[in-house]
Amino acid sequence: MTKPGSTERTTLKRLSYKSSESTADLHSILDENLVAHVGVVIDGAPLVIPMAYGRSDALIYLHGSSGSRLMRHLEQEPEVCVSITELHALKVARSNFNSGMHYRAVVIFGKAKLVPNEEKQRALDVLSDAMIPGRVSEARPSTKKELASTLIVSLALDEASVKISVNEIDDPEGDMNLGYWSGTVPLTSGASQAIPADEESHSLPVPESVKRFIAKHSK
Amino acid sequence: MTKPGSTERTTLKRLSYKSSESTADLHSILDENLVAHVGVVIDGAPLVIPMAYGRSDALIYLHGSSGSRLMRHLEQEPEVCVSITELHALKVARSNFNSGMHYRAVVIFGKAKLVPNEEKQRALDVLSDAMIPGRVSEARPSTKKELASTLIVSLALDEASVKISVNEIDDPEGDMNLGYWSGTVPLTSGASQAIPADEESHSLPVPESVKRFIAKHSK
Repeated sequence: MTKPGSTERTTLKRLSYKSSESTADLHSILDENLVAHVGVVIDGAPLVIPMAYGRSDALIYLHGSSGSRLMRHLEQEPEVCVSITELHALKVARSNFNSGMHYRAVVIFGKAKLVPNEEKQRALDVLSDAMIPGRVSEARPSTKKELASTLIVSLALDEASVKISVNEIDDPEGDMNLGYWSGTVPLTSGASQAIPADEESHSLPVPESVKRFIAKHSK
Repeated sequence: MTKPGSTERTTLKRLSYKSSESTADLHSILDENLVAHVGVVIDGAPLVIPMAYGRSDALIYLHGSSGSRLMRHLEQEPEVCVSITELHALKVARSNFNSGMHYRAVVIFGKAKLVPNEEKQRALDVLSDAMIPGRVSEARPSTKKELASTLIVSLALDEASVKISVNEIDDPEGDMNLGYWSGTVPLTSGASQAIPADEESHSLPVPESVKRFIAKHSK
């Protein structure tokens, strides 16, 4: 029995993923991914731009050049919607109707908040270590000029929804035993060996943080 | 010499990617990726949701359940912004300021257009074959009920921007020969062996389209 107003399709969808209220799931998705798609409204129209991000406790940081149109908009502390999606597998059902993808996804709503000057360095360090943990302590430190030319905003994780596909196959009974195949195709992601940029870098060891990143993503 | 109003950082950014006006680049990014982040404005606030998509010539299709809030919004033919990002590598510069990611990205702007009933089956086939080319002819055909419970919109590719990172390292001269490493860490993606869902599927051969998909992504 489905709820009034729900359709066969929404019912099937409810079977194919779960909403998670777990902070651990939220943090895990945020910490294991690299790119957020950040949505804002400019002159009444939507704009969605891919950005790096970094989590610190119950917020994420976004940053960019003080010369960019998007950052000049974000520093006005508008409503934003940030979407992070981690694809795991293709779900190949007996019908295309029941096919789709297995994923974990976070959607965060809230107001961007400009990070004040005195907190910028720490926020930048969070952003750098989010890409490659431990990288901050190895790289050439920021200059004042670099800090000044960077805008950073934060977004609290207060209003975030987490969706996780579950590995159920939702082919209806009527599709069974007609000779149609159903299954999943796992999608993999990883990192390969670091490529030094130039002669100086060739002569130096690959930094420890980079080695750890590659080892972790070569499993 | 930089343009009036540009900063050191925007200048560096201009070096680190190129805008492409090539339709071949646009189509290649659209055809080789699976997930779009679709932005709309609902009640003045941004909403960004990951969706499957499929390209047919100079448009893409998006689809979902007629019961979903997003699809009921999209069928009103609003302004949308669709962002597709393909991550290639981490760019590890001598400074975190010059570090970032190598990627190809498309951002499409336009009005969603509701696909009329008589074109829905063809649009669904485009969507299914966009995930796994050749899949349509193998799967159980759509039913009228399935078609009726699915909404599809199209978005023309008339207003699309394409950004492609170029493999330049943009460490400034002053960062050289101080003992800092610089380079890239290639990020890889692929597919592994198909997992049949159930006994019937175990007894059947893996469909040809699925085998081709896995072979292509196991390179």
